[in-house]
Amino acid sequence: MTDGAARTATATQPLSPRQLDDLHAWWRAANYLSVGQIFLMDNPLLREPLRPEHIKPRLLGHWGTTPGLNFIYAHLNRVITARDLDMIYVMGPGHGGPGPVASAWLEGTYSEVYPEISQDAAGMRRLFTQFSFPGGIPSHVAPETPGSIHEGGELGYSLSHAYGATFDNPDLIVAAVVGDGEAETGPLAASWHSTKFVDPRRDGAVLPILHLNGYKIANPTVLARIERTELDQLLRGYGYTPYFVEGSDPEPMHQAFAATLDHCLDEIAAIQHRARHEGDPARPRWPMIVFSSPKGWTGPKTVDGKQVENYWRAHQVPFGDARADAHRAVLEHWLRSYRPEELFDANGAPVPRIRDLHPVGDRRMSANPHTNGGALVRGLDLPDFRDYAVEVSQPGATLAEATRVLGGFLRDVMRANSTTFRMFAPDENNSNRLDAVLDVTDRAWNAETLPTDDHLAPDGRVMEILSEHTCQGWLEGYLLTGRHGLFSCYEAFIHIVDSMFNQHAKWLRTTNRIPWRRPIPSLNYLLTSHVWRQDHNGFSHQDPGFIDHVVNKKADVIRVYLPPDANTLLSVADHCLRSRQYVNVIVAGKQPAPQFLNMADAIVHCTKGIGIWEWASSDAGERPDVIMGCAGDVPTMETLAAVDILRDLFPDIKIRVVNVVDLMRLQDDREHPHGLSDRAFDALFTPDVPVVFAYHGYPWLIHRLTYRRANHHNFHVRGYKEEGTTTTPFDMCVLNQIDRYDLAIDVIDRVARLQPTAAHARDHLENKLIQHRVYIREYGEDPPEIVRWRWRSADHRPGDGG
Amino acid sequence: MTDGAARTATATQPLSPRQLDDLHAWWRAANYLSVGQIFLMDNPLLREPLRPEHIKPRLLGHWGTTPGLNFIYAHLNRVITARDLDMIYVMGPGHGGPGPVASAWLEGTYSEVYPEISQDAAGMRRLFTQFSFPGGIPSHVAPETPGSIHEGGELGYSLSHAYGATFDNPDLIVAAVVGDGEAETGPLAASWHSTKFVDPRRDGAVLPILHLNGYKIANPTVLARIERTELDQLLRGYGYTPYFVEGSDPEPMHQAFAATLDHCLDEIAAIQHRARHEGDPARPRWPMIVFSSPKGWTGPKTVDGKQVENYWRAHQVPFGDARADAHRAVLEHWLRSYRPEELFDANGAPVPRIRDLHPVGDRRMSANPHTNGGALVRGLDLPDFRDYAVEVSQPGATLAEATRVLGGFLRDVMRANSTTFRMFAPDENNSNRLDAVLDVTDRAWNAETLPTDDHLAPDGRVMEILSEHTCQGWLEGYLLTGRHGLFSCYEAFIHIVDSMFNQHAKWLRTTNRIPWRRPIPSLNYLLTSHVWRQDHNGFSHQDPGFIDHVVNKKADVIRVYLPPDANTLLSVADHCLRSRQYVNVIVAGKQPAPQFLNMADAIVHCTKGIGIWEWASSDAGERPDVIMGCAGDVPTMETLAAVDILRDLFPDIKIRVVNVVDLMRLQDDREHPHGLSDRAFDALFTPDVPVVFAYHGYPWLIHRLTYRRANHHNFHVRGYKEEGTTTTPFDMCVLNQIDRYDLAIDVIDRVARLQPTAAHARDHLENKLIQHRVYIREYGEDPPEIVRWRWRSADHRPGDGG
Repeated sequence: MTDGAARTATATQPLSPRQLDDLHAWWRAANYLSVGQIFLMDNPLLREPLRPEHIKPRLLGHWGTTPGLNFIYAHLNRVITARDLDMIYVMGPGHGGPGPVASAWLEGTYSEVYPEISQDAAGMRRLFTQFSFPGGIPSHVAPETPGSIHEGGELGYSLSHAYGATFDNPDLIVAAVVGDGEAETGPLAASWHSTKFVDPRRDGAVLPILHLNGYKIANPTVLARIERTELDQLLRGYGYTPYFVEGSDPEPMHQAFAATLDHCLDEIAAIQHRARHEGDPARPRWPMIVFSSPKGWTGPKTVDGKQVENYWRAHQVPFGDARADAHRAVLEHWLRSYRPEELFDANGAPVPRIRDLHPVGDRRMSANPHTNGGALVRGLDLPDFRDYAVEVSQPGATLAEATRVLGGFLRDVMRANSTTFRMFAPDENNSNRLDAVLDVTDRAWNAETLPTDDHLAPDGRVMEILSEHTCQGWLEGYLLTGRHGLFSCYEAFIHIVDSMFNQHAKWLRTTNRIPWRRPIPSLNYLLTSHVWRQDHNGFSHQDPGFIDHVVNKKADVIRVYLPPDANTLLSVADHCLRSRQYVNVIVAGKQPAPQFLNMADAIVHCTKGIGIWEWASSDAGERPDVIMGCAGDVPTMETLAAVDILRDLFPDIKIRVVNVVDLMRLQDDREHPHGLSDRAFDALFTPDVPVVFAYHGYPWLIHRLTYRRANHHNFHVRGYKEEGTTTTPFDMCVLNQIDRYDLAIDVIDRVARLQPTAAHARDHLENKLIQHRVYIREYGEDPPEIVRWRWRSADHRPGDGG
Repeated sequence: MTDGAARTATATQPLSPRQLDDLHAWWRAANYLSVGQIFLMDNPLLREPLRPEHIKPRLLGHWGTTPGLNFIYAHLNRVITARDLDMIYVMGPGHGGPGPVASAWLEGTYSEVYPEISQDAAGMRRLFTQFSFPGGIPSHVAPETPGSIHEGGELGYSLSHAYGATFDNPDLIVAAVVGDGEAETGPLAASWHSTKFVDPRRDGAVLPILHLNGYKIANPTVLARIERTELDQLLRGYGYTPYFVEGSDPEPMHQAFAATLDHCLDEIAAIQHRARHEGDPARPRWPMIVFSSPKGWTGPKTVDGKQVENYWRAHQVPFGDARADAHRAVLEHWLRSYRPEELFDANGAPVPRIRDLHPVGDRRMSANPHTNGGALVRGLDLPDFRDYAVEVSQPGATLAEATRVLGGFLRDVMRANSTTFRMFAPDENNSNRLDAVLDVTDRAWNAETLPTDDHLAPDGRVMEILSEHTCQGWLEGYLLTGRHGLFSCYEAFIHIVDSMFNQHAKWLRTTNRIPWRRPIPSLNYLLTSHVWRQDHNGFSHQDPGFIDHVVNKKADVIRVYLPPDANTLLSVADHCLRSRQYVNVIVAGKQPAPQFLNMADAIVHCTKGIGIWEWASSDAGERPDVIMGCAGDVPTMETLAAVDILRDLFPDIKIRVVNVVDLMRLQDDREHPHGLSDRAFDALFTPDVPVVFAYHGYPWLIHRLTYRRANHHNFHVRGYKEEGTTTTPFDMCVLNQIDRYDLAIDVIDRVARLQPTAAHARDHLENKLIQHRVYIREYGEDPPEIVRWRWRSADHRPGDGG
């Protein structure tokens, strides 16, 4: 941008002088309220000269992007009213928090949800004071901001959130501002390609607005400093038709932006009409806007002789020390430049011309129900998960692939909820054995197809792109607007979205404390292809630490489940799909594995979340000599195999097997709502009996969860300790000493050391280990003895215990 | 790609019939060896008919991408020899592991580093058997693969690794294959923009080769299914000049690829000449190749009537059950189609025409020293960090910004190591107070500049792009090729690269066990703008959990430091910059904060990593009543302030202050090489005295690290518990109960409960808390009493203790 003129693709002047004046007045009002939030704690209407004590002692906030966000807001309001649009606004540069707060206050929504922030001078004073102030509201767009589904913390997810919101919402248009700083992030760069996964018939539309603001915190932005022709190519390469609006002089900019916006909305309407009514199957080139305006637009041009407007100095608070005379004068001049006396009436409320500009009721972007998805959500129509049960006549006798069984259930969930449920996976849906869902839908795909392709269609509801970030962002957008979903992912690579999980979990925790935010469906992760079955992919694919990451977040929003077999997985999945406001992490294997519980027992076990498996125990209700705890499918299998071995070697040892499905049960009830009381915990693990615990993940998590328990010093935990390579499943267990032999040795060392046969038994087990490893290295597969192992006890019926 | 013809930008036929034949022979040999690795465990040269027992029982590996990787390898060899290039090869589709292993064996490198895998029939048999076999090598490109700096596990980092390798390596060319699956990831999508950060004068060149293989595991790829014109626009928008080579018929494909490769290398040479000798300042449009070839090229077209070649079924092992007659015949026919009898001599060694094709010595891509950076690395020329010390005449009396002090040291590190040290930050270098480095270099920037820009230059060595992924990838590439660097990042958002950290830590752990891999410089993170000083940004920016993530990795590769002030930060940073093969995580604040140790004491303290601060303790070497542990700058300050309060209230309580710089000291010496023995630990923390520990991060980590210690049950840990918002620094401490008053109350509750003044003292402290919070909410800043607090003891000289 080299001058103040506005350049645009269209030359029309769609705004009448009156319309232009009104739009400009709204923008001035929003800007005034934004500057007020950053600087003022009193004298909100400038009815008296600005004195030092009117100004906040700590100045915090981001001005730079705010006027641009406000400009767009005003223009969106015009077209919402003119076209009766169902539109929401996603602001990638969410640090421009003062903007949408100002707009929500102008629209009245703010006072509706926060009555103490009334639409008058007193309310305006509180509006200003609370901003970025202790006990007030964050400086970013946040859950507290009406009309937002997109926190302005971490950058990169505006487009994927926007697209997620439009899926199955055919009448919704999401205006999504992408900051040019944000545009440098990987997740944002990938998410432009969402256009290949949108169906113009069943989905709504995203109108991306790339905001070329020019600067980040301390650097120019890449997209603002490549040639415009290059940027045009990039955006066309992403599949869009870009329209450029550039300038700094408000009047032509208003005309240019209004004309461009009209043009884009006409194009969106035409695309939807062609697809919906003329059967045009071509992938549309969706319109988008490149909006280039000065950073800190309408703010001071210079302060202390240094450039501020259109420079990085405008990024946050453009100048400090605002209580001092010189800067206070700059501030007062700046604020008065918006002519507040024309914008607010004697009481401090917006004047009618401002009130008249914005839409009413649910059409206000700050009040659109899609942005408070919990207000729209309907429960899933769930088939009875018991109908998908694996037949288990006796524990461990049959094999099944747990996630494949789950796939059957999910297929019918998908069938029964054709506009409110989607599944997401980074090219792993079938690898994760969930391919049954493709019986009732397809993978979303709106790029070229070939005759050999299968299950690809624009209206598919299995969302697969090789980007965990995009999958997560889409799903979040879908959930935040009140729908349901499941993200299946290789366990190791879910760490790719660690930081996105953080932001979503923090969103949930915060909304739990905001009464007007209604509960939304939980974010459900199914982590499979897990650490113990990476014989194919090896060390780089072995990391069970997402659980550790998750449990760092507030207990009231996170849940972790480790179902040991297919029926427990079904029960857990049903529970998770019914839940609200959680992040549910389910870890389950996809390989053929022994099944332990019939459905009746599975339900009982999952309801308790943790329990003694009496059919596998030999303590007969008495005080055991040792407790073998287990959590996770492979650890459970190895534990049972160890019990098997120990019963042969030491028939007199009384073993109790405790299986954990709901990991949070281990924590105490003061730490987590699912936590067991100390009494209940001691009833399972006793206060003093040795515990050998085989855990799916990093072993120290079990210590962390149990460190306050009476018996904690007796816990000996085996888990993944970063030993792994490309090898067989059993060898993976051996490398990490969580295999049946090592577990049996652990028990011997704790409770049978003094028995006369202990040394012999230990030798026997260690020899077994050596023999097995020799076999594995010779033949490249697990010994038949391991592969064919099944739980021994035909005489123990699953109904015997819980 | 619609037919077998090759289409390319150039129509020349650069290869003579003999050259073409030789190239094709190399390719056949590499493909033969690749298929052999996936399928065979005996009869490697097919000197007898294929019998079932020659075939592996478990078939694991990825065929689909391998022939394309091999094709490119052969062609790169031709140009390396013809032009005497210093070139390495980064393979984004690293799951095509058999390819580079085959090539390294053909080049002789494999047998040099693994003598048992000799260049003969016996060696070939072992080469085949070890692949994806227990005790053997992974199926992906891995640290074990000679010539690789890029693990083929997680996808998305090929280009950023490639660019990182070229920085300050002006004569290096990195051929980087980007898989079209990988291209869907966010990190890869962002890293195309690296062109704006490359200096054609001081840096080498990356030649990206986008491999349009068409399919991922189970889906087509986006870039293969958009129109070629759209793809062309996308790549031009990213700043490249793309050349397309497409087809399936080998002969024209060889000619087309050779011609295109020659053209691209000519262009690179011309770009470098213009920049280096003609002073052309224009940002080049670097050439790149789009290489479209069938997935599973040269493999079976169909198996059991189903398409394999050019389809997703070719992605991994194209067919199973290979020991059975029907599939065994397919396999044998496939293997013999490469005519191994022409490729290997009687002993099984490559015939001369193959040996003659590849370069010799260090020019072999499998032996290029840049791919074993430890072989090239030179230590940094480090200034004496003591020269940058903050004057600390008595503890706590002076204020300093720790990272700003570090910036001065780093400036001179940067100055003294002008081709071997770079700094990386996602637009946060100055925000993190490291701007002193800009005195001696600039930020790398090769896009448009404006007169108002400062410190931007193509040859700058401060790398700033708003993409943590790209920063991390660049740094990894820089380190893996034997140079040094530092990544400074906001603490909360370093989680964005959790998964990249995983992969790098696993790489380091694996290379520790590979003798020919030489130690590389450590990956140094400086995490600042940390959880306790996010008064500006609020809850979304508060997450100290990267440390938890890091400590899940092997103890021999990770180090975590929490220097409490500037001088300790200097000492720690000096240590980290000298180290090899670690990931060092340093957490330090950037805000003005009290300084505690003079440089002499700081060095002693950091050398020990943990120690009693006698000057702050009141136990006078006797058995204390309570131990106050602290780790991290803010927790240390609050601990000392609590000691201050307690000394006034309870002058008789004997308090010992233990400060932890090196977090791994807390673990025991069996778990971590830095761990203290139980005896040494007990000397600090005693076996039975109550400990109130204030920790920078999530409190449970301290429990995890100390749970085996005798005194663990007496540890009471305060840390971040996910309570936060936009508020003052002290209020953040209060919200998480790690503030001085809560710490003092914790002490009273443990050791002074029965003293007559306890109840009164407790009330006093709780009233203080209430008063402070009222003040904060009224004035929006911390009370003067808090802001002005300094350590009391003018009478305690820092030299008194250590």
